[in-house]
Amino acid sequence: MNSKEIPYKIYLEEKDMPKEWYNLRADMKNKPAPLLNPGTKEPLTLNELSAIFCEELAKQELNDTTPYIEIPKEIRDFYKMYRPSPLVRAYCLEKKLDTPAKIYYKFEGNNTSGSHKLNSAIAQAYYAKAQGLKGVTTETGAGQWGTALSMACSYLDLDCIVYMVKCSYEQKPFRREVMRTYGAKVTPSPSMETEVGRKILQMYPDTTGSLGCAISEAVEVSIKKEGYKYVLGSVLNQVLLHQSIIGLEAKVAMDKYGIKPDTIIGCAGGGSNLGGLIAPFMGEKLRGKADYEFIAVEPASCPSFTRGVYAYDFCDTGMVTPLAKMYTLGSGFIPSAIHAGGLRYHGMSSTLSQLYADGYMKAIAVKQTEVFEAAEQFARVEGILPAPESSHAIKVAIDEALRCKETGEEKTIFFGLTGTGYFDMPAYEKFHNGEMVNQILSDEDLAKGISGLPTV
Amino acid sequence: MNSKEIPYKIYLEEKDMPKEWYNLRADMKNKPAPLLNPGTKEPLTLNELSAIFCEELAKQELNDTTPYIEIPKEIRDFYKMYRPSPLVRAYCLEKKLDTPAKIYYKFEGNNTSGSHKLNSAIAQAYYAKAQGLKGVTTETGAGQWGTALSMACSYLDLDCIVYMVKCSYEQKPFRREVMRTYGAKVTPSPSMETEVGRKILQMYPDTTGSLGCAISEAVEVSIKKEGYKYVLGSVLNQVLLHQSIIGLEAKVAMDKYGIKPDTIIGCAGGGSNLGGLIAPFMGEKLRGKADYEFIAVEPASCPSFTRGVYAYDFCDTGMVTPLAKMYTLGSGFIPSAIHAGGLRYHGMSSTLSQLYADGYMKAIAVKQTEVFEAAEQFARVEGILPAPESSHAIKVAIDEALRCKETGEEKTIFFGLTGTGYFDMPAYEKFHNGEMVNQILSDEDLAKGISGLPTV
Repeated sequence: MNSKEIPYKIYLEEKDMPKEWYNLRADMKNKPAPLLNPGTKEPLTLNELSAIFCEELAKQELNDTTPYIEIPKEIRDFYKMYRPSPLVRAYCLEKKLDTPAKIYYKFEGNNTSGSHKLNSAIAQAYYAKAQGLKGVTTETGAGQWGTALSMACSYLDLDCIVYMVKCSYEQKPFRREVMRTYGAKVTPSPSMETEVGRKILQMYPDTTGSLGCAISEAVEVSIKKEGYKYVLGSVLNQVLLHQSIIGLEAKVAMDKYGIKPDTIIGCAGGGSNLGGLIAPFMGEKLRGKADYEFIAVEPASCPSFTRGVYAYDFCDTGMVTPLAKMYTLGSGFIPSAIHAGGLRYHGMSSTLSQLYADGYMKAIAVKQTEVFEAAEQFARVEGILPAPESSHAIKVAIDEALRCKETGEEKTIFFGLTGTGYFDMPAYEKFHNGEMVNQILSDEDLAKGISGLPTV
Repeated sequence: MNSKEIPYKIYLEEKDMPKEWYNLRADMKNKPAPLLNPGTKEPLTLNELSAIFCEELAKQELNDTTPYIEIPKEIRDFYKMYRPSPLVRAYCLEKKLDTPAKIYYKFEGNNTSGSHKLNSAIAQAYYAKAQGLKGVTTETGAGQWGTALSMACSYLDLDCIVYMVKCSYEQKPFRREVMRTYGAKVTPSPSMETEVGRKILQMYPDTTGSLGCAISEAVEVSIKKEGYKYVLGSVLNQVLLHQSIIGLEAKVAMDKYGIKPDTIIGCAGGGSNLGGLIAPFMGEKLRGKADYEFIAVEPASCPSFTRGVYAYDFCDTGMVTPLAKMYTLGSGFIPSAIHAGGLRYHGMSSTLSQLYADGYMKAIAVKQTEVFEAAEQFARVEGILPAPESSHAIKVAIDEALRCKETGEEKTIFFGLTGTGYFDMPAYEKFHNGEMVNQILSDEDLAKGISGLPTV
């Protein structure tokens, strides 16, 4: 099909929307290593997992054999409120860069949570409701996950308790207010409401909190409060499963127009977006049906793929969670306060880690200021104001397109635009005022971070 | 067609997108009264108008005979970046209200400006560029128009000078920063950069500014600066013409599925959204082809339709603009500081004023707190966090749907959802904290406002 016939935006019709998630693990020869009980160092059983998560989600977490899992009708109905998300041909960016490359992006920001997080939030809330729970607890840093979960819970009349890292709670009052609009109870963490919170406040009365501490508080409440379970927005296998809707929709849209991407690029924090974006394409690669180049983009300040070690580690700073085998900078590592809050995580999804270890994926680390340069360039021609996280993928997509300009390659580049930056304007302001600095992980900090890895 | 077959969201394909704007005035028997030169009290000529606006826009302003005006290809290409906007069936809201009514809304918030304003911004910027201008000047209050114009200018490499009401500039630093991201020069008004600004600052050194003053500064700069013209985001005929894209798209989508609205509801400030939303439907009504009920919704604190007088008045507080015949509360009237900043305007589009005077339209004034109640109810089931302005239409649509519940009527209700409220969270916060008050225009303030109307 002639590229001239490809519209600026491809929207699937509702009848073409995927009815099943794709479980990438089913097609992996080397399966991702299982979660371990930190006490026994044995793989977690369904029973153990069900103490933390809803039973159906625990099953999904363990299932590495079923390739397609049906999306319940209620979730598909919710998806219809903000999905299908558009597959966009970046005609204006191509023209501005004067590149022979064709650039596409899947835009997940057209919903109030402002990101792809809603895809898994509604799934996790749905299974909690179906199990008869009263509510769920979670933590949020930048606030996108907390907002998404609030929206999903409000839709299902489910109670939503969010521990928000204190400095974010204070610096991002608008995010907090969006969550309140959706009826969530938002508490700055550490708080006096939990044992672990009180303990931390006693030791460090002036602390502004951390994601690790907020996780510990949310987990504690979920265990102590009758009828509540804990939910998490990234890293887990179940989250990648739900996020496969991104890649599946993109694949259907591309197939409809005969588009075949050469390079697929996504930003990577815990892996929720990247894992979902690449899922069906990686599946084809694993099955030997097609070949694609996959690039994970991470911040130079928190480069788990490019500089981390592949080992078992805790998922949280407080070391209360199960152990996951992943590329990690160490669960004690505190990433610099960069503005892409969603990428400030010490580890990486086990599934993606295994694929990276097996050579199916590349990774690139980029610096903060060059990310914002790319973000602004993109906004000015494509209209959309991107989130700092998403802009990591933009940066590498632009670099790739400029390389094609030199070589004359007519490559098809596809990247994930995970969300919008409306709540990140203080970061843009710093960038405009020339006050933004680049933080690059030092060898000393890396050594310190990985020195405390648990022995398995 | 069975309503079960109607999807949650109807997106037109690009090939079905309107290629012409619809000029409602061409079908009006009683034409809107012409703009007058405030000195001579004579209708403004094309020459006089062209001193303020680009020539093509001045022509559009005066043209009340051509029903369809071609949308230049460059503008249609820009529209493709964020349009077609979805026509949404509010299934979840219907279910929540348990109403037999069918509710639809046209959602214009899926672009970075966060509202429908971009539809006219790109048109005005395009004609400025086509005329060989270097740039445009404008004012902005809440910031949606300024953001939209910045985006359009950045796309066309046109200089964009925005005077932003000082209190908004300070209270909404994020809006300001979005404009800067798109390369606009944003100056708090009143400023020391203009004669009128310096004069006002000398008289009132502590003033936080007003839209009227910002208009005066923007107009002064456009006149003094070689290669610049002034542009405006509402009220004018040309703006309503560009905004007709909203109604036209909705009409095509509805016709495709055999949907015929009974009641069409839009919020009304200066009239840019309402005029665009109703255009093709009102055209059918004027031509006797179909009948619809039209409802304009305005704030009780600034009710130009329901309590204003129909008379010639200045378009700005500074009394430097031409005179327009409209429903007005008096150009000297300063509306209360309600949170729907886009509806804080003393007058109303001449076109809509004439239609209202001729009985083609109803109007309802609503109170601020009930607007936010409706906004929150809507957000929780439909996902989208609405702007305070848009929520005026939501409030009346919900009331209408609840009335249908009582009567059992299976009415089809259609309203315009003009934008998102991401930058209005301080208002939501006040609402959540119970600190929001209702301001209703007093008889005294009304009498004072209309006492100063010019004699024509």
